[in-house]
Amino acid sequence: MDDCIFCKIIKGEIPCSKVYEDDNVLAFLDIAPNNKGHSLVLPKKHYRNILDTPDDILQELIKAIKKVSNAVKEGVDAEGVNVIINNEPAAGQIVFHLHAHIIPRFENDGFKHWPGGKYEEGEMDETREKIKKYINKQ
Amino acid sequence: MDDCIFCKIIKGEIPCSKVYEDDNVLAFLDIAPNNKGHSLVLPKKHYRNILDTPDDILQELIKAIKKVSNAVKEGVDAEGVNVIINNEPAAGQIVFHLHAHIIPRFENDGFKHWPGGKYEEGEMDETREKIKKYINKQ
Repeated sequence: MDDCIFCKIIKGEIPCSKVYEDDNVLAFLDIAPNNKGHSLVLPKKHYRNILDTPDDILQELIKAIKKVSNAVKEGVDAEGVNVIINNEPAAGQIVFHLHAHIIPRFENDGFKHWPGGKYEEGEMDETREKIKKYINKQ
Repeated sequence: MDDCIFCKIIKGEIPCSKVYEDDNVLAFLDIAPNNKGHSLVLPKKHYRNILDTPDDILQELIKAIKKVSNAVKEGVDAEGVNVIINNEPAAGQIVFHLHAHIIPRFENDGFKHWPGGKYEEGEMDETREKIKKYINKQ
């Protein structure tokens, strides 16, 4: 897409610090890393996010996500890795070309996970049924 | 695995609030949701996390992740969805059976994303080279 910064990176019009590339996928360092080594893995074809990307593209992507996750962990000697895909602005998506964040993690790096809530009586069943209504409507 | 709580759920020995199931994958509501509708998607076969899971299992998983992400978003009328896979304790993994969190998101739900840092001169190239050393050693 003409005005997509990630498409421009894929075409080589904007430079990146590339860690991996194959026919379908590109991975490079995030320029504003949560921890150093934080990488982005994305399909070369433009899709908005996971919600609209065809299965075959996602299946190529996940192989690269695994490969990059292992390499980031080893490369920066991390103790763990988060794989995060933000879909839509409310979920923190800023660039609208599907990408997975690979974030190396260390004990005591200070990053907090979000708190867990709870369901009131009957609310869990109700929520499950609402989701199931849409599970095969795609 | 005998002592894995998710394997017990898969075998039906512990109940869950199931939103999706196929031959390879199960998805159910997280009992301590970040937001209501927060679901977990996991392969039926036991693997520790994304770092050690075979590609074919990941490829089945990602199809279900997409399906559940769309259904959760529609089902609870969310504005976005985070897909998060925590790998190893330092990354917040608590149950050691690979699982993806599907978290419905709303503008102003108050969940913060982690801050971005920066690289000093030369440090980005150095980090990239360290990661590339491991990219094909798996």
